Amino acid sequence: MPLKHKPTHECGVFAVFGHPDAALLTYYGLFALQHRGQESAGIVSAKGSDSTFQQHKGMGLVSQVFKMDDLDELKGTRAIGHVRYSTTGSSTAKNAQPFVVDTNRGQLAVAHNGNLVNAAQLRVELEAKGSIFQTTVDSEIVLHLLAQPRGDGGALAALRRIEGAFSIVLMSEREIIGFRDPHGFRPLCLGKKDGAYVLASESCAFDLIQAQFVRDIEPGEVVIIDNGGIRSEFPFRETRSAFCIFEYVYFARPDSNIAGVNVSDVRVRMGRELARLHPAEADLVVPVPDSGIFAALGFSEELGIPYYPAFVRNHYIGRTFIQPSQSIRDFNVRVKLNLITEIVKDKRVVVVDDSIVRGTTARSRVVTLREAGAKEVHMRISCPPHRFACYYGIDFPNPDKLLANQCTMEEIRKYLGADSIGYLDLEGMIRATKRPGNDFCTACFSGDYPVGFDAEFDKLIMEKRARRVRLLDNEEPRLI
Amino acid sequence: MPLKHKPTHECGVFAVFGHPDAALLTYYGLFALQHRGQESAGIVSAKGSDSTFQQHKGMGLVSQVFKMDDLDELKGTRAIGHVRYSTTGSSTAKNAQPFVVDTNRGQLAVAHNGNLVNAAQLRVELEAKGSIFQTTVDSEIVLHLLAQPRGDGGALAALRRIEGAFSIVLMSEREIIGFRDPHGFRPLCLGKKDGAYVLASESCAFDLIQAQFVRDIEPGEVVIIDNGGIRSEFPFRETRSAFCIFEYVYFARPDSNIAGVNVSDVRVRMGRELARLHPAEADLVVPVPDSGIFAALGFSEELGIPYYPAFVRNHYIGRTFIQPSQSIRDFNVRVKLNLITEIVKDKRVVVVDDSIVRGTTARSRVVTLREAGAKEVHMRISCPPHRFACYYGIDFPNPDKLLANQCTMEEIRKYLGADSIGYLDLEGMIRATKRPGNDFCTACFSGDYPVGFDAEFDKLIMEKRARRVRLLDNEEPRLI
Amino acid sequence: MPLKHKPTHECGVFAVFGHPDAALLTYYGLFALQHRGQESAGIVSAKGSDSTFQQHKGMGLVSQVFKMDDLDELKGTRAIGHVRYSTTGSSTAKNAQPFVVDTNRGQLAVAHNGNLVNAAQLRVELEAKGSIFQTTVDSEIVLHLLAQPRGDGGALAALRRIEGAFSIVLMSEREIIGFRDPHGFRPLCLGKKDGAYVLASESCAFDLIQAQFVRDIEPGEVVIIDNGGIRSEFPFRETRSAFCIFEYVYFARPDSNIAGVNVSDVRVRMGRELARLHPAEADLVVPVPDSGIFAALGFSEELGIPYYPAFVRNHYIGRTFIQPSQSIRDFNVRVKLNLITEIVKDKRVVVVDDSIVRGTTARSRVVTLREAGAKEVHMRISCPPHRFACYYGIDFPNPDKLLANQCTMEEIRKYLGADSIGYLDLEGMIRATKRPGNDFCTACFSGDYPVGFDAEFDKLIMEKRARRVRLLDNEEPRLI
Amino acid sequence: MPLKHKPTHECGVFAVFGHPDAALLTYYGLFALQHRGQESAGIVSAKGSDSTFQQHKGMGLVSQVFKMDDLDELKGTRAIGHVRYSTTGSSTAKNAQPFVVDTNRGQLAVAHNGNLVNAAQLRVELEAKGSIFQTTVDSEIVLHLLAQPRGDGGALAALRRIEGAFSIVLMSEREIIGFRDPHGFRPLCLGKKDGAYVLASESCAFDLIQAQFVRDIEPGEVVIIDNGGIRSEFPFRETRSAFCIFEYVYFARPDSNIAGVNVSDVRVRMGRELARLHPAEADLVVPVPDSGIFAALGFSEELGIPYYPAFVRNHYIGRTFIQPSQSIRDFNVRVKLNLITEIVKDKRVVVVDDSIVRGTTARSRVVTLREAGAKEVHMRISCPPHRFACYYGIDFPNPDKLLANQCTMEEIRKYLGADSIGYLDLEGMIRATKRPGNDFCTACFSGDYPVGFDAEFDKLIMEKRARRVRLLDNEEPRLI
Repeated sequence: MPLKHKPTHECGVFAVFGHPDAALLTYYGLFALQHRGQESAGIVSAKGSDSTFQQHKGMGLVSQVFKMDDLDELKGTRAIGHVRYSTTGSSTAKNAQPFVVDTNRGQLAVAHNGNLVNAAQLRVELEAKGSIFQTTVDSEIVLHLLAQPRGDGGALAALRRIEGAFSIVLMSEREIIGFRDPHGFRPLCLGKKDGAYVLASESCAFDLIQAQFVRDIEPGEVVIIDNGGIRSEFPFRETRSAFCIFEYVYFARPDSNIAGVNVSDVRVRMGRELARLHPAEADLVVPVPDSGIFAALGFSEELGIPYYPAFVRNHYIGRTFIQPSQSIRDFNVRVKLNLITEIVKDKRVVVVDDSIVRGTTARSRVVTLREAGAKEVHMRISCPPHRFACYYGIDFPNPDKLLANQCTMEEIRKYLGADSIGYLDLEGMIRATKRPGNDFCTACFSGDYPVGFDAEFDKLIMEKRARRVRLLDNEEPRLI
Repeated sequence: MPLKHKPTHECGVFAVFGHPDAALLTYYGLFALQHRGQESAGIVSAKGSDSTFQQHKGMGLVSQVFKMDDLDELKGTRAIGHVRYSTTGSSTAKNAQPFVVDTNRGQLAVAHNGNLVNAAQLRVELEAKGSIFQTTVDSEIVLHLLAQPRGDGGALAALRRIEGAFSIVLMSEREIIGFRDPHGFRPLCLGKKDGAYVLASESCAFDLIQAQFVRDIEPGEVVIIDNGGIRSEFPFRETRSAFCIFEYVYFARPDSNIAGVNVSDVRVRMGRELARLHPAEADLVVPVPDSGIFAALGFSEELGIPYYPAFVRNHYIGRTFIQPSQSIRDFNVRVKLNLITEIVKDKRVVVVDDSIVRGTTARSRVVTLREAGAKEVHMRISCPPHRFACYYGIDFPNPDKLLANQCTMEEIRKYLGADSIGYLDLEGMIRATKRPGNDFCTACFSGDYPVGFDAEFDKLIMEKRARRVRLLDNEEPRLI
Repeated sequence: MPLKHKPTHECGVFAVFGHPDAALLTYYGLFALQHRGQESAGIVSAKGSDSTFQQHKGMGLVSQVFKMDDLDELKGTRAIGHVRYSTTGSSTAKNAQPFVVDTNRGQLAVAHNGNLVNAAQLRVELEAKGSIFQTTVDSEIVLHLLAQPRGDGGALAALRRIEGAFSIVLMSEREIIGFRDPHGFRPLCLGKKDGAYVLASESCAFDLIQAQFVRDIEPGEVVIIDNGGIRSEFPFRETRSAFCIFEYVYFARPDSNIAGVNVSDVRVRMGRELARLHPAEADLVVPVPDSGIFAALGFSEELGIPYYPAFVRNHYIGRTFIQPSQSIRDFNVRVKLNLITEIVKDKRVVVVDDSIVRGTTARSRVVTLREAGAKEVHMRISCPPHRFACYYGIDFPNPDKLLANQCTMEEIRKYLGADSIGYLDLEGMIRATKRPGNDFCTACFSGDYPVGFDAEFDKLIMEKRARRVRLLDNEEPRLI
Repeated sequence: MPLKHKPTHECGVFAVFGHPDAALLTYYGLFALQHRGQESAGIVSAKGSDSTFQQHKGMGLVSQVFKMDDLDELKGTRAIGHVRYSTTGSSTAKNAQPFVVDTNRGQLAVAHNGNLVNAAQLRVELEAKGSIFQTTVDSEIVLHLLAQPRGDGGALAALRRIEGAFSIVLMSEREIIGFRDPHGFRPLCLGKKDGAYVLASESCAFDLIQAQFVRDIEPGEVVIIDNGGIRSEFPFRETRSAFCIFEYVYFARPDSNIAGVNVSDVRVRMGRELARLHPAEADLVVPVPDSGIFAALGFSEELGIPYYPAFVRNHYIGRTFIQPSQSIRDFNVRVKLNLITEIVKDKRVVVVDDSIVRGTTARSRVVTLREAGAKEVHMRISCPPHRFACYYGIDFPNPDKLLANQCTMEEIRKYLGADSIGYLDLEGMIRATKRPGNDFCTACFSGDYPVGFDAEFDKLIMEKRARRVRLLDNEEPRLI
């Protein structure tokens, strides 16, 4: 049996209400959000209020999944779309979103970015009531909750049952609905295009379709868009904001604005903060592209050391390529970036990257620089060390695989082979955002988790579910 | 919203319990049952009693859907499989069977041959309880019923809720279960291979895998196979048998035995009965291949008129081919069979086919024979005229499209352009089976329907479902 | 280097001149000729006399290779097409026909059925003159010959250089040309459709497109069709006719007429001749479908023994299917045909097939009949024993793999496990065609080869070509 | 007939001699050269000196064309590979390189970067001798020349016949041969990997496979590598060097070194030269990625104006995407780059790009900046205005489509909507390379063409070829 719910972390969502090109706009929106997920893509659209939802989903990039014919069949004035992050293993077409189902409330389609922390509990509870599950993704749970008979408060009450990180767009037979969890872990914003409302994970999606950015959806806000216009509900209990600061550091696109702050601008300031905290005497500041570019620029400007993009990116690396057995060392790392060796020879080089996870890639960059003849290599990282797991949607490895969880700063420096190592601190990172510190979730750096979760219970439930369920029933595990 | 449940009529099902090559045997079983459905194929398998079900499904023929790699991943000792009939329009990958879901009773997989007459009612009832539906096929309803909380009698009680024609195989985490509706509309039989039990829609599937035929499953019988062996339950109220006699006439393979009677043998006897009822003075008896071959042989032998397979079948017609705009008349009909004109020239020809539905194909055959210079063309049909709809799983067109529903015998003859026309009668057809007459459903010939159905209610429910549901709830059609 | 020319044996060719639907008609023509080759299919078409030839080719069946879009791009009034037989191993898309090239005579396209016996010599000679080869099929040699500078007689002189078995259609910028080798080994016939001329390997292709059969192309005849009409040339030295009699026995479709004789009719007469030569006391005559059907009918009628098609063909066997490791014996043979065991139990059965090559399949049929309880099994073959290789286009295995080449009649009977064995003799086979005996090539039965060939030279040339060529040049094998 | 030879311009070639992973290294080499051609990719390999060449080619990116299985079948110690530039229209799989043929000199494979100026003449001449052509690419002409009977000097003499721009790698049954035209228009360099020689269009391909760069191949040099080692021939008449300076400006990768000079370094110097020639008072220097990055850096550093990569590239734009009808202006341009509007608002911006061809893209960039609120927009181009056609392999549009060919500098400024426009001059561009000015071809800027060509003759020959050929022959255009 499916043992583990797959968190739909690191996804992108998009929605349109009331535009004749709803599916086409969604297609472009997903194009602009592709960095949030390359594993699968899907769009669901609806014509009038009583017509059958149309859908097209598939594995791969937006440009691979949709052909002109597919979009032609997605006619309608409402649509929602989804792109999902690529993780290894359990990725199957069955899990591609948005999901569409038929319920006593009519047809519903849902697209989800985030990770429910009480997915296992909800699933066991729903199954006990007779619900059947076809996938292992959180979105299916949301749909089951919405389909329960109304007695205890309707759809808003249903939403109150889910806990964790979620930015969700939902299409019913009359509405487009968007909502963020009360902590606002993941971004979601509202725009307008030719009079129609659009929702997107990031504002950069509005630029491509020339929509106007209106505002961010508030943490805990439910926005309902229908023929009568737009209105908001706030069904969740109030709590503090906990926006994932790693969106600013790495995940969001530099041309997006979140809470009114431009992401590239934050990254330049992180580079400046980093330069002030861990300056270096050097001849060149070299970014690790693309994530380190803006921090490297800030670092370079703060210290007046020339900036040089000496790592050249190969734009034609597909999602898969054939790997050598052994004749070429570090191939996976080197195939993506090639160093202009002439530039770094006999130079003291500062390498700026946004973060170090396992450390293998960073180490390989240092080795490459040494081989090219760099006299000194100083590694600078534009966020604090990653030491803790994320339960809210970012796909970090187990903490014991995180370099900074296992090593002291000197051990990290030695492992990387760098002459010096410097991470930005929590305070500097938050200062760079120009937002109050208690606005953020910094759990992966600090271990301070805004929402509780019971990992032990999850494990117990999911791994032993078959047996547990049967014991609860106090009967034989046979069907008949 | 999906307005109409798609009956899973005219399908083939197969199941294996306790064989190391369960999926491979199922693959061959589906190969042998391919004539029962060419639209999609699928297999679900399971290793031990606690492992996750593996599945592979797709659109197309068994040989197209499954590659060696697919079967390799379907390891296990239990498996069920399904082939579905090709109908135009609503065929989508989503509707391919078997279905697999996760419930409070653990994982369940189901494959279905037949048509529930109370599907619409059950669906409305289940949705009202909070169930969500992802497809429009009957099997999903069966799964929802089985997943309901037990209080009212468990799985067998759930099965009692479904009405209509169904031969179903089901895989739970411990069992393989097979059952036929109490009328036994569709076939299902039990075999044994290397000590393992197998279930199949027709006995010809046992021949290919060299399994021993054990017996037919009884109407209303539920066979449960698990590690403890095999046992039977009879949860349904008793009723008369109503086996679809059209399986003998056309649908089943000639090398299958049903209720101990060989199908090709029945067809030869139908040809003999037909010859006695409607003899003809002629030079040649020509079958319409492949369905008319055995009846033509019987006809030929009874009257001593030489048999000649003058229509040659093109074995390379794929499921799709490009059609001419207009330059070639009757292309669709002619591309499948070509007439050996030399053979029929100046001859009096009896053409024997198993049935006439719309009449267009039959008419085209007569035209072809005339153009080839046949002196006389006598059309003989080895079953009675089709005048009524089938609600139990055969995909006939609406009755007003049935030639015999709209025309007198003389009008039929004229329409076809034949010199004479002769259908077998009900009595002769039943006599040819050597089984008692009240064993059969003959509704499509006689209009005598063994199970009631409420077409008006269905229409009302399905077409207006969204509105009706909302009215029942007495509230606005909005989600929030 | 490519060591061996691949004979383009057992192919089908088709051509149209002067019809607005030229490519579509060719598509249907290839559909009807699909039995002559299932490995690859291709069509080349041309609009006016100065436009670029359009082509579409691919591996697989006609229905798989061509989609509507492909045909739409093959607009024009002239077209030629080709289907190639499936042999194992060296089949690649590169070798798919028709071939199209650009020469000093303008564009040329060619499609070829047959096998040149002097291919190796011609190739060496052409390469020495500077020709370069991209494939290993005979058709490319024909194109090179036609492209040579004119001085020695033009295109007709070029054709005189090729020897062996060939029925070829050719498209130039003005003409459609069809020709048969002077022995006329392979069939080729002329038809007319809506005033336009068509050429096809077999007349059955005309039936599907409702074209009128005009006549067979004569052995050694070159038919040139252009805007001025149709005319014939006879450039080859005269010689005796040597039509491949195995086309009547097995290869051609029963609904084709060759030299005015219907193929199915010949096969019925072969069955009658066989019955007179090797009668049997039996209860049933069972054909091996499809090739044995007509001979079995003739056999049945001659002796008055009932005919019963007890082997049921599975029409859904694709070109590839997954094979069991060992759990099912003779699977390859059994998957194609299933025996109706009830019919043959306790019966004396005559099995009629068209030929025995290796004997493994025939043996398996006998075993199946015995296991089903047949009391006696008498094997009858509607042509003489195959004892010799074919150099003219039929893909028989090496003679030492031919059962009749290695065994006496009694050894054959024992190997097959039959109660008796009987082959038709040469005289009876020829009598059944109603044509003079010296019209035919019977080399595979008699060892009497109409056209000489030097197998040793071929081997020498092809296997050692690289070395030989260099020795001729008396220099080092380096390019520079 | 194929009217126009397709120049194989802007391609990448790679070759390996004597390495057990020859095909795998070639695969990586093509990966690194992918920027030189994205339309098709192919590899040909050979095991020993007498084995058949293996090949795999296809349309698309290297990562799409090759799967592990494909490479596994390309075993051997020698290989050559090719990537081809994507141009619209005439791209077909048939034209993919390398080409492989069989000749009197054994098998030959060729991969070509460049454009022959006498292709039409050579083709007419070869066809008159009897050669047949299957494609419209220059490489096939090279193969025909090499296959001609030796009498007039062998392979080197054959190479002397070709004129124009070409860097070619060639594989015979014993050798790998690489050569550049006597002007050395296109790059080609020699490296070493584990003792084996490798050839590549650019040195960046050596970095990925960790090969050592040895030296550039000289203009007019033929390098022959076989088991005896490496040697050089200089068969061409001596002439001045004419390396395409646009390779430094745009086409080559920044991490490649050509003639000992690093490309990124040249581009930075071009930016500095440009800043000195056309300075600007501004707040930001913004590059058009990726081609303008290094010039923008140089410009920024020279004038002390901050550098900001405000155009963000979407890395997920596939080769094809669905385009809006009209609702989104300039979609094609905008989808690739999105502007960070916050950064440029109220700023005076210098935009630096490598070149302007038609001007539509550049104009759209200015519009985008204005809409974002930029106070001033100054366009700076790091090479002189493009005013003339290239006959040596770069795919510029017709000169009358070149903006600078049609407009004065002030007209260009107005058309773009910029506040000022500034191009680098010829002298500054050459100075930035640190190489002598007469080393280069600058024809597209200066109209000074190093190699003559007869465009009128080409046109006459190719467009009217069919007719011309026939007139030469003084006979009817019929084949027979």
